[in-house]
This record gives sequence, C-alpha cells and structure tokens, in this order.
Amino acid sequence: MSTEHPSAASDAAGPHSNRRALALMPDGAVRELVGADLDDIDRIRKTRHALVWLDVADPTDADLALLDREFELHPLAMEDIRKRRQRPKADVYPDQTMVVAYAVTTTPHAERAFSLDELHLFAGDRYIVSVHWGASPTVEAVHGRFHQRASTLGASAGWLLYALLDAVVDGYFPVLDLMADQIDDLEDRIIGARGGTTALREVLVIKRELLELRRVLGPMRDVANAMLRRDNDLIEEKALPYYQDLYDHLVRVLDQVDLYRDLVASTLEANLAVTSNSLNAIMKRLTAFTVLLMVPTLIAGIYGMNFRFMPELGQQWGYPAALLVMVVLDVMVALFFRNKGWF
Amino acid sequence: MSTEHPSAASDAAGPHSNRRALALMPDGAVRELVGADLDDIDRIRKTRHALVWLDVADPTDADLALLDREFELHPLAMEDIRKRRQRPKADVYPDQTMVVAYAVTTTPHAERAFSLDELHLFAGDRYIVSVHWGASPTVEAVHGRFHQRASTLGASAGWLLYALLDAVVDGYFPVLDLMADQIDDLEDRIIGARGGTTALREVLVIKRELLELRRVLGPMRDVANAMLRRDNDLIEEKALPYYQDLYDHLVRVLDQVDLYRDLVASTLEANLAVTSNSLNAIMKRLTAFTVLLMVPTLIAGIYGMNFRFMPELGQQWGYPAALLVMVVLDVMVALFFRNKGWF
Amino acid sequence: MSTEHPSAASDAAGPHSNRRALALMPDGAVRELVGADLDDIDRIRKTRHALVWLDVADPTDADLALLDREFELHPLAMEDIRKRRQRPKADVYPDQTMVVAYAVTTTPHAERAFSLDELHLFAGDRYIVSVHWGASPTVEAVHGRFHQRASTLGASAGWLLYALLDAVVDGYFPVLDLMADQIDDLEDRIIGARGGTTALREVLVIKRELLELRRVLGPMRDVANAMLRRDNDLIEEKALPYYQDLYDHLVRVLDQVDLYRDLVASTLEANLAVTSNSLNAIMKRLTAFTVLLMVPTLIAGIYGMNFRFMPELGQQWGYPAALLVMVVLDVMVALFFRNKGWF
Amino acid sequence: MSTEHPSAASDAAGPHSNRRALALMPDGAVRELVGADLDDIDRIRKTRHALVWLDVADPTDADLALLDREFELHPLAMEDIRKRRQRPKADVYPDQTMVVAYAVTTTPHAERAFSLDELHLFAGDRYIVSVHWGASPTVEAVHGRFHQRASTLGASAGWLLYALLDAVVDGYFPVLDLMADQIDDLEDRIIGARGGTTALREVLVIKRELLELRRVLGPMRDVANAMLRRDNDLIEEKALPYYQDLYDHLVRVLDQVDLYRDLVASTLEANLAVTSNSLNAIMKRLTAFTVLLMVPTLIAGIYGMNFRFMPELGQQWGYPAALLVMVVLDVMVALFFRNKGWF
Amino acid sequence: MSTEHPSAASDAAGPHSNRRALALMPDGAVRELVGADLDDIDRIRKTRHALVWLDVADPTDADLALLDREFELHPLAMEDIRKRRQRPKADVYPDQTMVVAYAVTTTPHAERAFSLDELHLFAGDRYIVSVHWGASPTVEAVHGRFHQRASTLGASAGWLLYALLDAVVDGYFPVLDLMADQIDDLEDRIIGARGGTTALREVLVIKRELLELRRVLGPMRDVANAMLRRDNDLIEEKALPYYQDLYDHLVRVLDQVDLYRDLVASTLEANLAVTSNSLNAIMKRLTAFTVLLMVPTLIAGIYGMNFRFMPELGQQWGYPAALLVMVVLDVMVALFFRNKGWF
Repeated sequence: MSTEHPSAASDAAGPHSNRRALALMPDGAVRELVGADLDDIDRIRKTRHALVWLDVADPTDADLALLDREFELHPLAMEDIRKRRQRPKADVYPDQTMVVAYAVTTTPHAERAFSLDELHLFAGDRYIVSVHWGASPTVEAVHGRFHQRASTLGASAGWLLYALLDAVVDGYFPVLDLMADQIDDLEDRIIGARGGTTALREVLVIKRELLELRRVLGPMRDVANAMLRRDNDLIEEKALPYYQDLYDHLVRVLDQVDLYRDLVASTLEANLAVTSNSLNAIMKRLTAFTVLLMVPTLIAGIYGMNFRFMPELGQQWGYPAALLVMVVLDVMVALFFRNKGWF
Repeated sequence: MSTEHPSAASDAAGPHSNRRALALMPDGAVRELVGADLDDIDRIRKTRHALVWLDVADPTDADLALLDREFELHPLAMEDIRKRRQRPKADVYPDQTMVVAYAVTTTPHAERAFSLDELHLFAGDRYIVSVHWGASPTVEAVHGRFHQRASTLGASAGWLLYALLDAVVDGYFPVLDLMADQIDDLEDRIIGARGGTTALREVLVIKRELLELRRVLGPMRDVANAMLRRDNDLIEEKALPYYQDLYDHLVRVLDQVDLYRDLVASTLEANLAVTSNSLNAIMKRLTAFTVLLMVPTLIAGIYGMNFRFMPELGQQWGYPAALLVMVVLDVMVALFFRNKGWF
Repeated sequence: MSTEHPSAASDAAGPHSNRRALALMPDGAVRELVGADLDDIDRIRKTRHALVWLDVADPTDADLALLDREFELHPLAMEDIRKRRQRPKADVYPDQTMVVAYAVTTTPHAERAFSLDELHLFAGDRYIVSVHWGASPTVEAVHGRFHQRASTLGASAGWLLYALLDAVVDGYFPVLDLMADQIDDLEDRIIGARGGTTALREVLVIKRELLELRRVLGPMRDVANAMLRRDNDLIEEKALPYYQDLYDHLVRVLDQVDLYRDLVASTLEANLAVTSNSLNAIMKRLTAFTVLLMVPTLIAGIYGMNFRFMPELGQQWGYPAALLVMVVLDVMVALFFRNKGWF
Repeated sequence: MSTEHPSAASDAAGPHSNRRALALMPDGAVRELVGADLDDIDRIRKTRHALVWLDVADPTDADLALLDREFELHPLAMEDIRKRRQRPKADVYPDQTMVVAYAVTTTPHAERAFSLDELHLFAGDRYIVSVHWGASPTVEAVHGRFHQRASTLGASAGWLLYALLDAVVDGYFPVLDLMADQIDDLEDRIIGARGGTTALREVLVIKRELLELRRVLGPMRDVANAMLRRDNDLIEEKALPYYQDLYDHLVRVLDQVDLYRDLVASTLEANLAVTSNSLNAIMKRLTAFTVLLMVPTLIAGIYGMNFRFMPELGQQWGYPAALLVMVVLDVMVALFFRNKGWF
Repeated sequence: MSTEHPSAASDAAGPHSNRRALALMPDGAVRELVGADLDDIDRIRKTRHALVWLDVADPTDADLALLDREFELHPLAMEDIRKRRQRPKADVYPDQTMVVAYAVTTTPHAERAFSLDELHLFAGDRYIVSVHWGASPTVEAVHGRFHQRASTLGASAGWLLYALLDAVVDGYFPVLDLMADQIDDLEDRIIGARGGTTALREVLVIKRELLELRRVLGPMRDVANAMLRRDNDLIEEKALPYYQDLYDHLVRVLDQVDLYRDLVASTLEANLAVTSNSLNAIMKRLTAFTVLLMVPTLIAGIYGMNFRFMPELGQQWGYPAALLVMVVLDVMVALFFRNKGWF
C-alpha cells in the first residue's frame, strides 16, 4: 500500500511530493512552505507566531529525520510511525499530544465496503503534524478548507486538531448508512428464503466489518473522552463544547454499529428459523407425494398378483373400477393432507 | 416529513403558523405573543419577569435566525437543529441547557407500531424553546395545559422543562403495553406452531423496534440522571423529587424494554424448538406411512412373481388369504408404531 | 383486583374494614386505634410517644386524604399509590422514607407459580404506614407478631420497617424451592425426550417468571444497599447488621434466580440437542426400514417380469429359492445396519 | 446429614465428641481442652494469653449456648448457624469477624463429582471457632498440623484463619483437574459422535456443577478481597501478602471455572454441529439407497407389464439383458453419487 | 518438561549450566559472573554499583537456596516457583517487585499452534532475576542484546524489566497473525461446505487456544496497568511512556484475541447455517428423485395388473405408448420441480 520513494535519500534538496506544509500567519494569510522553509519550521512558528501544519504521506526515513529535527517527536512515537497498525490512542508527552485515529473511505465495487486508513496526528505549541499512508481524502478536504481560510474556527493547534478529527468522524456516517441498506436488503432476502449461501457469506462479511469498525471506534471514543477530561494547554476553554460534540458523534456512531450488530445477529437467527420452517414444509410435501404415489401402486400390485381365483379380474368393469379406486383413494388422501395443512 | 415553508423569507412580517409563543406573566395570566412581540421576547422576559415558551415546528432558516437573535443559541446547537438525528443528550452551556429527547407516537395500521419524534428543548433564565418536526402531540398536550394555567407546577423554566419531559416519558407506557400484547400473541402462535414466516417477520420487526427504543431510552435515562446530579440553577431544590421521579420512570421503561427483549429472544428459541419437535413428528409419520404401504406392496409383489410352482396361487382361498396377510401385517405394524408413540 | 368501597364517602364516621392501626405505647402495651383515634394519630405519636402502624388495604380517596392529613405524604408518593405498578425504590423525603417492595405469594393450582403483590411503606418519626392491594399474608404475619408483642426487635419505625421487609424477602425462598423442583422435573423430562410441546410451554413460563422475579428483586437489592449506606435517622446503629442481613438475603435470592435462569437456558439447549439426536435416530430407522422392504420388493419385481425365457421360473425350487434370497439379503442388510449401529 | 445428639441436654457434663478445643499456650505448647475447660475458654485466652481454637461439628442447641456464653456470637450469626445454606460472606461485628466459606470434597463413584460443605468461622481476639456439618477433611488436616505445631505460621487468630481458608481454597484445585479431564473426554466423545444422550446428560451435570462452583467461589473471592482491603486488627501487616496470595488463588480458581464453562458451551455447540453433519450424511445415504433400489424396481416393473406386443419379452437374451440394464444403471447412479461425495 | 539436574546437590562447586549471571558495571562494561561470584552478587551490586541479571532455567532446590540467600525472596514467591502454574500478577513486597508473565512460542507441526511458557521475574534495587522452565527464546533474545550492550535503554532494573516484558508481549503478534490465517482458511472451508468434522475439530482447538490466550493476557494487561499507576521506585519517570506503550500493546493483543473469538463464533454459526441449507437442498433432491422414479413405477404397476379386459394391453402401440406416458409425466414433474428451484 505504501508507495516507493526512490528519492528518499536526497533529503536536503528538491521538493518532496509527499510533504506539504502550510503556515497560517498572524495576519490571517496562509503561506505554503517549500524547500528550505521546511528546515526552518521551528523558527517560523516560534519567532513569527505562525500556526504550521505539516502533512506527510507515506513517511520515509528522511521524513522521520525531519520530524525528529523540527518537532522532536518522542522515540516511541517515531517507532509507532515505522511499525504502523497502532490502536487509536492519545499519548500525552510533556510538550506534545499524539493522536492515532482511523479515517474511513468507502470502496465501492470492492469486496469490502470500506477501508480504514491510519492517521497519526501530533499537536504541540503552534503546530500540527499529520502522517498518513496513501492518499487521505479526509486530510485533503480539511487541507483545502484551511488553505482557503474557509474554516471559521480559531487559529490554534487545538482547533486544527478538532477540524481533522471532526472530518474523520463525519466520514463514518455515509459508511454506516450504506451498511444499513445492505442489512435491510439481506434481511429481506433471508426472510424471503431467497438468500442461500451468498447471503450467508455477505452476512459474515458485514459482521466482520462491524467488528472491525467497533475495534477502531471504541478506542477513538475513549480518546475523545480523555481529551475532554484532561486538563491540557492544547484545548482552549471555548473549544471544549466542540470536543464534546466530537465525543457525542463518536458515541452515536458506536451506538449505530452496535445496533447493526444486533440486527445482523437477528438476521442469522432468522436464517436458521427460515431454513427450519422450509425444511418442515419440504418434508411434509415429500410425505404427501410419497403416500399419494404409493397408494395406487399398492392397488396395482394387488391386481398384479397371479392368483387363479380373483373374481374381479374376470369382470368387464374390473379395470376401470381399479383405476377409480386408485383415484378415489388418492383424492381422500389429498383431502386429508390439505385438511392437515400439508400442501 | 418536514413541511415546506414557502414564506420563510418574509421573516419580519406576518404570522408564522409554525411558531407559537406563550408568556406567563407574574400575575399568573398567560398571553399569546404574536407578530412583533416575537422580536421582543428578550425584553418581555427580562424587564417584565414573564416566563416565555416559544414552540417552533419544522424550523426554517428564518426561525433559526430568530432563535439566534432572541436566545443566543450556541452555534453547535444551531447545527444540531439543522442536521437533526441527534442522540438524546443534555448539553450545558453557560446560560443555557439544551436537551434532545425523543417523543413516541403510536402509529396504528402502519407496519411499525410507533414513530420516534425528535424534540430539541432549550431552557434558560425565564424561557424555554421547543423545536420539533411535524406535529408533536406531546408538546400539544403540555401547551394546552399551560395555556389554561391547568398545570399545578411552579412557574419557572425548570418546571416547564420537567412538564415537557414528563409528558414525553409518559408517552412510552402505552406503546410498551401494545408491544406486550403483540409479544404474548406471537408467543401463543409460535408455541401453537401456527406462526410460520409471518410470525417470524413480526418477531424481527418487534426486535428491531425494541432495539431502537433502547437506543433512545438509554441516553434519555442518562440525561435525567445527569440533570439530577448536576448542580445547576435551572432546577430548584423543590423540583428535584420530580426529576427523580422522571428518572425512575425512565428506568422502569428501560426495564420493560429489556424484559421484552428477553421475551422475544425466548420466543425465537421456542420457535426453533417447536419446528424441531414438529420435524420429528413429521418424520415419524413419514416413516410410519412408508412402512404401512410398503409391507402390503411387498406381499403383492411376491404373489405377482411368475414362478410356475407356487402352490398358494392355485388355491381358492389364496387371494383372500393374501389380502388378510396384508391387513394383519399392517395392523401389527400399526400397533408396533402406536406402542412407540409414532402416531 | 381492588375491592369496591361503597362507604368510602363516609370518611369521618364508622369503622373502615380496610384500615387497621396499632399503637405501641411507651409502656409496651399495644392498643388498637379505631374510629376517631384515626384522626388523632398525629397527636398520639407526638405527645404520647407511641409508635403507630397504620395498615391500609386497597386505598380509597378517603384513605389518601387521611394519609395526607396525618402523615403529610409527598404528592408524588400519593400519585404512586394511585397509579401503582411502581418499580421497587426507596425515596427519601425530608421527614419520611418511602419504600416500594413486592411481596410474593405462591398460587398453587394456578397457571403461574406465584403472584407479586405491591407494597408501599412509609416510615417516619415514630410511625409506619403500609399500603397494599388485596390481602397481604406477609403484612398479616408481621401484624400478628406485632400485636402480640412477640417481636424481640426494638420499638422504632426502623425496626418495624426491617421486620416487614424481612418478611417480604423470606417469602421468596419457598417460591424458589418450588421452582427448583419444577426445573429438575422439566430437565428430566426433556433429557428423557418425554417433554414435547407441553414441556416447552412450561420452560417458557418458568423463564418469564424468573425474568419477572429478577426485575423486582434487582431494584429491591439496590434499595437494601442504599438503606445500608445512607446516613439517615431512621435506622439506628444497632439495626445496621440486620439491614446488612436483609441485603445478604436479597443477594442470595438473586444468585438463586440467576442460577435457575442458567439452568433453564441449559434445558432449552438440551432440548435442541435431544430433538436433534432423536431426529437422527428416526432417520436411521427410516433408512433401515426402507431398505429392508425395498430389497425383497425388487427381487419380487424381477421375478414378476414377463420374459419368456427365465429358466428359474420353471423350476420346482424357484419360488422357495426366491423367498430364501429375499430373507438372506434382508438378514445381511440387517446385520450391516446393526454393525453400523442403526437399530 | 446432621447426626443426632441425644446427649445434647447434658451440656455441663461429659465429653462431647462433636466439640474439640485446642489451646496454643504462649510457651508454644498445644493443650487439648476437655470437660470443664470448655466452660473456661474465656478465662484461658484472656488471662493466660493462649490462642484457643474450638471446632464444632453438627452444632446442637447446647453447642450454640456454649458459643453464646464463651464467645458472645451475634444473634444473626447464631441464626445463620441454625438455618445454614448461607452465602459465602464476611460479617464484621465490633469484636468479631465471621466468615462463611464452602470447602469442597471430591465424591468419587457418586453421580456428582464433589460436595460443597458449609464452614462457619469466627475469629476474634486470641480465638477462632469453626463450625461445620458432618466430617470436614479440610478442617481435619489443619487441625492435625496445628496440634503437632507443624504450622510455620504466626500464632494469632488471623494466621489460623488464613491457614483454614488456604486449606479450603487448595481443595478446589484437584476438583478442577478432575473436571478438566471429564470435559476433555466428553469433547472427544461428542466430536467423534460417540456421545448420544449419555454424553448430553453428563454435559448438563458438569454445567450445573460449574454454575454451583461459580456461585460459591465468586462471593468467596469477594470475601478475600474485603479482608485484604479492610483495615482491621485481626490481620497483621505481615500476614497481608498471605491473604493476597489467598485472593490470587481464588481468582485463579474462578478463571479456571469460567474457562471450563466456555469449553462446555463449545462442547454443546459442537454437539449440535456434529448431529447436523451426521444428519446430512444419513440423508445423503438414504437418498442414495432409495434411488439405487428404485431404479431396478422400475425396470422390473416395466417388464412386468402385460402388453401383448413387447418384443423384448420374447427374446432369449431379454431376461439377462434386463438384469444387465439394471446393474449398469445402478453402477452409473453409484458413480454419480460417489462423484458428489454421497457415500 | 523440567529437565533433570543430577548435579543439583553440588551447590557450592562447579558451573551450573542452568544459571547465568551478567553484571553491567557503572563504566558500561558487561561481565559474566561465574562460580564464586554467584555467591557474591549481593556485594557486587551493592558496593560496586553494578546492575546484575541472574537468569535461572528449571530451578532446583539449590537454585532456590541461592535466590533466598542473595536476593531474600519472599517465602510466598519461593513457593510460587516451586508450584508453578501461577496466574500473571505483580506482587509488590517492600524491597522487591515480583512479576509472573507468560511468553508464547509458536510450535509449528504440533497439534496446538503455540505453547505458553511461565516466566517469573524479580526486580529490586540494581538487580533482576528471571526464572523459567525449559529454554526461553524470549529471555535468550534479550540476554543477547544485553550482553552486547545493544540495548539503547537506561541501565536500571526498571528498564531491564521493561525490555523483558516488551519482548514477551512482542512474541504474541506473530502467533496472532498465524491464527488469523487459520481462521480465514477455516471460514472459507466451512462456507464452501468443504469442512466436515475436521474443520469442526479445528474450530474447537482455535477456540480453546483463544480462551487460553485471553486467560493469560487479561491479567498481564492488569499487571502492566498496575505498574503504570503504582507509585514505585522501580520505574523512573522517563520509563513511564515505555510502560504505557507496553500496556497499549497488551490492549491491542487482547482486542485482537476478542476479535478472533467473535470471528470463530461467527464461523460456528455459519457452519450451522450451511449444514441447514445443505440439508434442505438434499431433501429437495430426495423428494425429486423419489417422485421421478415412483411415477413411472406406478404406470408400470397399472399395466402389470391382470385384468382380463384392459383394451390397451392388446394394442400394438400399447407398450411404446406406456413408455411415452412415463417419459412425458417425468418431464412434466421435472419441469415443475425445476420451476420450484428444486434441482
């Protein structure tokens, strides 16, 4: 998934397409930092009071060195970037807050409905660093709004962190709506006994997807809660209701995921019930067919016996009478079964 | 669901059918505020010590502007109204408490037994604002009582908020009674094996309804609990037992919902057991029928063989004897099966 | 369930069969209060230092008025009496503790094993009020002991409240023993496959009964716990171990209920397993019967063919030989099946 | 279970076989107290600084009177001894700690793997009282060690209480090992489909046994935890790690019990799966047998028809050809089914 | 599993292959302690300020005596080493912290995917003792890094303890990846109905393995959490983020285990659903086959009757017409069944 960076060695020189840095100056202007500016971030935010956002996609060793140099990331945070597959968490170091979150992207036409994209965020005094792998539509959207100064929020790292996390969480709603439709559709097919193994496979896929969403969203809710309660400098008093709102949205998403898990579980139970019902129906029909065919076969067998003295055999009306008996008996059996509700 | 408001632009002028404002004056009289008064709510409640209740149905942009102007709602609260589908919650802003609750309305003759109607309430110093979509019978009822000064409660925003929430919670009891009847009926049908796929579908519908009730009622109980514990100016000392009562009722409703979920789960298990039992019965009968018909068929087959030397064939009594053997064997088989309990 | 009180209007005069008041005087004598004394309870307990117990069955409006006048019940407590169907709870008002509990009465020969009878208790300074609907054997028993001064407990409202709650809780043990017997019996029948739909229906009834017991006992345990922890005047230091004991008993009853729920769940699972096993056995037997009857039928069919040149047909030994082949083949098949364990 | 004590009335005189008292003197000597000494325990421990351990089996009214006289047990503790069937608990009275625990004894050759034996312990200043019903191997073992001064522990009531509880807890490990073997054995039989109803019955027995162990061990863990945390005089600072160890062992036993419950649940699920698989296999075989026998029966039926003009009937090769067709068709059917995996 | 130590008696003399001691001197050099040095550890770490690590494999009585002499282990800790099979825990004694952890080793080609190896760690002022049974690859790896001074961590017992625990936890990730592959494989086989009893047995094995991992990992997480929160001298301020990281990893491992348990549970449910579906398909086919063969058998039976007057029998076209009727009827039945989706 991580693209190759053959030019990773040439650190000092040239533009790196995987790094983008924006600086929001105190006068409200947004400047793009390129080239040598990148090695100067520290000075820009400290002496010129700018809010700097550095976004790194598919970090190389050179990028890690830059992060270490300019933002003094904790060794464990660096290792997390190297290893990836972290659990959503908020680690608070003396001058820095590190947040690991997962953004969701719908992947239509793929076997799975969405992909979960890891996102590492570092927020400190007047800077924010975002690290991700592959393109991140979520980061892209916030980047665009920030670039055009479209955001009506404040101009601190705490507000920018909120904007990013809010975009991450908002991404889950369309995915959940999609899954709700899938579940409704599956339920209809299964109750209507039109499902079969395909429906079953889809149920298992959705179940696994919900488990994975839960595994990511649960800790993310805990992160939001921890940021609310923790008394840190990063988040101003005025931003608290916004973080509360973030937390509320995560709780709502989790509620939804739990609801869907319950619905999927119901669907599987319904599937069992439907197949049981259907088996009963089939067996009743098998019994009915068997009896309906065996009764006249027995009659025919009787008149196929070779006894010399069977008076009926010599009668003109014998044959039609035998056929009549067959039909009459079958009609009686059929009426009996219909009465029992077996057809 | 939200009705159209073509006249939304003409904010300043004319009566808005979707806005209704009542003011309870210190002398106990209730006045209806219309027209220009609506832009004067702020002054009325502050200088004339009136308790103002503004009810807005299907809020338009013009309504939101009014709410912003007269009550200074928090931007996030405004956004919640715009987006809807909020989770029940109580957000406490410096001068305002915002409560999101869901009222329930039974919908007879519809596929689902009830609809859940979102209700946003804002309570502050001497005012309460209620926002809902579509007609709200719950708000209507409290409005009527308030208009006729029928309520025996105190005359503060906290009491009015209680009256509204109490009406909301009381609405759940008839819905639950209805569901209890449905569940009893379903259980009877399923145990009596008269259910089939229809009953199954109904079980799934009830299960989903209970999940949705739980999803709404759980946070509402937390809201009631938070309001009890929180030390705020809104709720006077004397009103606390009433909020405690509200909390107790919500706990009772939730208990009921959980009981019903357990009962529905039992019903599904019972369904499985009933279909299994029934399958066993069918298979026993199939076995019995098969054997009862195959035994005489075999006898008939034997006497249908074409061997030249079969002494019985030539006897006068051969045919009736063969028939007798068939009957006797079948009676024996039947007795054997009856003995085993297979009929 | 509530009996009619045509004389409810004649409040001031005459004896009310549904009200009984006892006063324990400081000298240890127990006096029955009748007629006008009832309107004088307030004075009796305050100026004469008596402990008064007023018991009301099926409260009428007149009774409620009396309760209001003499004990100043909180409006919400009055409303609870009017509405009934409250959740077990302990509400503490400034001068009064209100406890709602449920006593259990076994109802032999009825469809359900027991009935749950609501009991409202109000305890305050030197008085206790008990309100119930229909006869309450539990209250009756404590009443008798109190009347004869048989109780060895202290002479305060706290001790009397304990005596009543202890009697309520003790009532659950025989009910649980009864259910344990029913569950053992059901388990035996189901494992022995002698259950059928009747057993299933009984399992569902017991399951529902256990759910209802749990729903009542859970909050009652919380009530006992709250009374233990709460620092109130009602319960003296010396009475605390007794309330602790009450709490322990409630925990034991709940443990028992949970154990039974687990056992009932096991029973249902066992039922599924037993029916599956039994279905397997039936199918094996059906297969065996079918094959045992079809093999000789095929032989008979072969010798029933009308080919001109079938040498066996002309032989003297043909018929017995054919019968012998049938028997030999069936014996082989039977041995094969017995070997497979299908009989 | 409680043995009769005809001599219970003659309290003052004679040795009581069900009472045994040991006194550990300050000089380290252990003295057995008999006869009149028993009425003098109070003085022995108070004036002579001895640690006294009184063990009572199957307590009679006389024993209870002795306990009351010498150790001043709380009335509720006395009642608990009389009623038995208490929940494990630790009640702390001003001068006394009462612990109810359950010792386990394996009962080989019985239907159930073990019996749970109630044990009431009272510890106070320089004394401990143990009460049990029937012989208690656990108490016996500690008694022996104490008598021979084999215990390396300290000489206070707290240490002795620890020694008794430790022996109780250690008794659970062999029982659990036994159950682990049973569960492994059951799993093998069930997966190998060699279980049947017997295995099912055993699963239910084990499940019930585990539920009962859990019901006893859960509160015992809470007791150990409470003794650890509670700041009481009974347990010296140095003894705390030992009580911590006791707690750890109880947690381990409970972990084990929960593990076994999960394994037993898996076993039941596996049973369902195995019977389903087996049913499928049987049905496939039934289908195969049926078709294999019906195909030649149809051929035979066709050549058993009495049409005058059936050319094959007159041919010399007709009969063997018909037989050949039967065999060839059956071989084809058999190959088809083998190809489908139905044999 | 524990290897024999015949030379265990010769404690004072000779090298013990199962003991290895390293001392990190203040100057950064690492010295291996052998022979007499082992009895001098106490002095070396105290007067020469070295950090000593003693690793003991398969401890003998002589080893226990050494541990007692040099590190003054608590008697309970000694007993834990003797008994083994402890639960993961952290016991804090005045001068020592004891940690019991379980390292995991994959065991390819064995029936079970991994083995859990008990590891007892003792950390105190400037020393750490590790005790294990059999070879421990985890300890080996850290030992090698420590010997070559490769570790970039600090030089205190707290850091060394972290390094060991971190290695233990990292060992779980490859095991979990392996299990994820197994589960995916099983799911595919079961959904594709290619599983049978083998797959079922594997599911049960994995389920049991996950239960055992959970039983070990749960308490290990609690240990990590306790070490984080506890205010002890062992862990310096700077090491805390590392212990936090350890805790995060354990939480992630547990999340993974829980996810797998849910997936395995889904797999079993899917198995039930698949066998039910498959049974339905088989029964439909059996019904179809039965009817398809019985219909022509009935026709043949009819024309096998021996009535004298059966006009068709004398016709030239009788025989082919009968065959035609058979084929036509069967085609009709087949079309009917195909229409119903029974093929």
